[in-house]
Amino acid sequence: MLNHKKKSVILTEQIQTTLDNLEPLAQKVFLSLTPPSPLDNRADVDQVRQMLERSYDFVKVPLALMGKIPSICRSAHWQVTATLADIGNGWKLIDLEAGDTTDKQFGLAIDIGTTTVVVYLVDLCNGAILRHAADYNDQIILGEDILNRIRHAAEPGGLDRLQKAVLDTLNRLIKDLCPQSMGTEKITAAAIGANTTMIHLLLGLEPASICRDPYTPIVNNPGLITAEKIGLAINPLAPVYCLPSIGSYLGGDVIGGILVSGMHKQPDVSLFVDIGTNGEIVMGNEDWLVACAGAAGPALEGGVTSFGMRAEPGAVDHVSIDPETGQVEYTTVADMPARGICGSGIVDTLAELFLDGIIDRNAHFEKGREEYVVVPAKETASGEDIVVTQIDINNFMATKGACNAATDLLMENVGCAAEEIKHFYAAGAFGQYLPIESAITIGLYPDLPRSAIVRLGNSSGEAARQVLLSRPKRLEAEEIAAKVTYFELNANNTFMEKFSGSKFLPHTDLARYPSVRRRQQTGK
Amino acid sequence: MLNHKKKSVILTEQIQTTLDNLEPLAQKVFLSLTPPSPLDNRADVDQVRQMLERSYDFVKVPLALMGKIPSICRSAHWQVTATLADIGNGWKLIDLEAGDTTDKQFGLAIDIGTTTVVVYLVDLCNGAILRHAADYNDQIILGEDILNRIRHAAEPGGLDRLQKAVLDTLNRLIKDLCPQSMGTEKITAAAIGANTTMIHLLLGLEPASICRDPYTPIVNNPGLITAEKIGLAINPLAPVYCLPSIGSYLGGDVIGGILVSGMHKQPDVSLFVDIGTNGEIVMGNEDWLVACAGAAGPALEGGVTSFGMRAEPGAVDHVSIDPETGQVEYTTVADMPARGICGSGIVDTLAELFLDGIIDRNAHFEKGREEYVVVPAKETASGEDIVVTQIDINNFMATKGACNAATDLLMENVGCAAEEIKHFYAAGAFGQYLPIESAITIGLYPDLPRSAIVRLGNSSGEAARQVLLSRPKRLEAEEIAAKVTYFELNANNTFMEKFSGSKFLPHTDLARYPSVRRRQQTGK
Repeated sequence: MLNHKKKSVILTEQIQTTLDNLEPLAQKVFLSLTPPSPLDNRADVDQVRQMLERSYDFVKVPLALMGKIPSICRSAHWQVTATLADIGNGWKLIDLEAGDTTDKQFGLAIDIGTTTVVVYLVDLCNGAILRHAADYNDQIILGEDILNRIRHAAEPGGLDRLQKAVLDTLNRLIKDLCPQSMGTEKITAAAIGANTTMIHLLLGLEPASICRDPYTPIVNNPGLITAEKIGLAINPLAPVYCLPSIGSYLGGDVIGGILVSGMHKQPDVSLFVDIGTNGEIVMGNEDWLVACAGAAGPALEGGVTSFGMRAEPGAVDHVSIDPETGQVEYTTVADMPARGICGSGIVDTLAELFLDGIIDRNAHFEKGREEYVVVPAKETASGEDIVVTQIDINNFMATKGACNAATDLLMENVGCAAEEIKHFYAAGAFGQYLPIESAITIGLYPDLPRSAIVRLGNSSGEAARQVLLSRPKRLEAEEIAAKVTYFELNANNTFMEKFSGSKFLPHTDLARYPSVRRRQQTGK
Repeated sequence: MLNHKKKSVILTEQIQTTLDNLEPLAQKVFLSLTPPSPLDNRADVDQVRQMLERSYDFVKVPLALMGKIPSICRSAHWQVTATLADIGNGWKLIDLEAGDTTDKQFGLAIDIGTTTVVVYLVDLCNGAILRHAADYNDQIILGEDILNRIRHAAEPGGLDRLQKAVLDTLNRLIKDLCPQSMGTEKITAAAIGANTTMIHLLLGLEPASICRDPYTPIVNNPGLITAEKIGLAINPLAPVYCLPSIGSYLGGDVIGGILVSGMHKQPDVSLFVDIGTNGEIVMGNEDWLVACAGAAGPALEGGVTSFGMRAEPGAVDHVSIDPETGQVEYTTVADMPARGICGSGIVDTLAELFLDGIIDRNAHFEKGREEYVVVPAKETASGEDIVVTQIDINNFMATKGACNAATDLLMENVGCAAEEIKHFYAAGAFGQYLPIESAITIGLYPDLPRSAIVRLGNSSGEAARQVLLSRPKRLEAEEIAAKVTYFELNANNTFMEKFSGSKFLPHTDLARYPSVRRRQQTGK
């Protein structure tokens, strides 16, 4: 499955909320049936359905199963376990097994990222994650980022190739997750958190309209789809639920993040931010939710700085600079000789450079200096200095500035002041691995009491687990999607103005960062 | 399609009840959609679904259609017609067409008989039958009657062959019914009336258990199945509804007959009889319904008498004997030279023989006589006499006796006296073509005021039309199925006793046939 190297960059940690009442997408029921007799010669299918309808409203028995029911019932001496799948407005029989197997119920929570795919095997009896497996999305070789995937999908056969690639990834992971004793067909439900493009490609739907004005996807809420129609190698009749999106750039992964954060149920205003290749910002409370999204650029994924790299072994992931001596201390992933700098290393470096006055509020080096050596040549794997250049810093500041500008735009649109924001939720790798103090110092995170800053981990995967396990959570996700007002940033003039004015450390409005000002004044 | 010869023996006439409110299995809705804009960039699929859900509870959009929706909407300038299929507990989008096509909605009402198949093309806008087509069931070459079909199904590949045969018949008829300008995929719903074995073979379900104690079919009520899962060549997502059965020998065709008769809604007791290769008898009123069924033998289908034949050209179909001269007058189907005698001819002949005293109350010729010449050799196609023999009469009396015995058994079981029966419904060919007076004379029909005797025509096809057009009728059919108490005749000792005592003309209890007694006394 995953080798160590791969594992290091794929976020699998997550908050595992305990759900009050499990109402999974698929449920098992033990049935003690009556052998037919001259006095009760109901057909077997009808007897099974009638018995299930004592506890479940509207049970559909698919034709594919009808023919198998009599022999299963007879060989099991009429003691059988039925698996029912939620079909939104009723239930469908998707499996019938001999004996009582109600203690063995399995589902999948799936997070399909543009870069990585994580599959969690979930025990539907108690909601626990039994195992997980993760890997890069096979689609990467067909296009590194979302725009390239969309372009590839427009080529002849491209959409099929992309769909096959993600299905290959998923089905490989699913096979790896299942113990040999258990066939993958014993997995009877799946829920998926993913961005809008990933969902389109998985379902074989043309994503072209996603990146074309007016940025309308084919579908926001695909509803429940049976696994065989998608090509997911589990029970062919298993229901698959995709978390709904609310736009081309605000996908089910973000709706899932809101769900996991709980911000939509709090009276206080919260800010939710997820920055990967794309950035999504959501603000709101129990009464309102506003959001915007856009291409963030891979600033935090190592794509724009000279020595940028993913958080793989040898990536500088933590940096501190002694204010007295100017001495740099750093760590690397897996303690390997430094090969480059990953997102958390960049954030640390910029924060330290700023606090030590090596860059100014405009994030500029003093005149004449063009780079800063983070790791000297003698300590690196390549024998070259690992540096941060002014251009690297400018690129990074563009991402940070966009993030600040988008947040300000949302606040202005809803008439919410910065000090009203009481909670900050950082999703995904952006939330999990960035050093909180440094992220605040450079204004990527707001300057809130540290206890109000929550890392959500893989909230897309956790949201998938929640909707897999709970019908109310599924409805909650759909209510969130219906409630969010989406602001399109592409070609929004106000945004562009704010963006141009947002390139200060930690923020244009310094009053919003009292703790950073204090540290600057007191010397860290 | 049908040549004249075939047409003559296939019953297509039916009562066409006007239904109050049409709620067909598939319905069209015209939608005037909003082109997406930056202010409303909902996905196309979601907009369609949300607009449909203003009028319909729970609308599912299948994955197979999602990808086609954007291009249809755009090319139709957002003026489209959706077709929704009833899925029992909600609706499924099964087609989306450009423009307003709500005046073109087509469905099928299908009657699958063991011998013949009739398909009616129904206008779902007003319920009218636009065209019909009929043919022999291709399964005949694999087995003449139900038991032989069940035996054939048990052979390797037999079930597949039988399923393919009936599908070939149906799909051929469907193709013939559709004008060239209209593809068969524009047919968006179908309903089927058929006996339990025919439904099993159509659905590819093993019928073996139908003829094995305790006579339990695999399914009584298959619910709604999509056409593509069966192999019916109409819109692949069209819902197909099979009228429910209540036992191996009491199929959806009989439930349909009850539905069409309306006997289940009347305070008076009615008797419903359908005798073909199998015989079914239902008795009851608004409070109760009892039924029994069994193999009737092909007495009325020309299978047991020496010169028995189907009602094809040359079949003697009406017979009268002048009581003074003994002269026989007869007619033949299509006025062709006589080749044999069909069911109605046999019934007429027996009635006349009885009224003229040529056979006695025991249906026996006077001593020494062994046959009666109906058509002398010089008038027949073969140049041989066409006769009715004592053995022919005995075979026929067995069917009639079984019918009387079964009726008596039902009456006794529910404590209902013969004089309580106020209506008689004669279904199928048994009802349509038998001469009423003769059928009463020999005790096949009860001696009721003639206005209380109703011929239902092809009630199986008419019931299919009703459930195709009306959701309440579908629920009514299911309520009927749930309400009928079924008496199994196989190995019922009381029945065998009654049967042995039932071989009198017109009936063991002559008091039940006052009009026959009167005719006997007054000389016809």
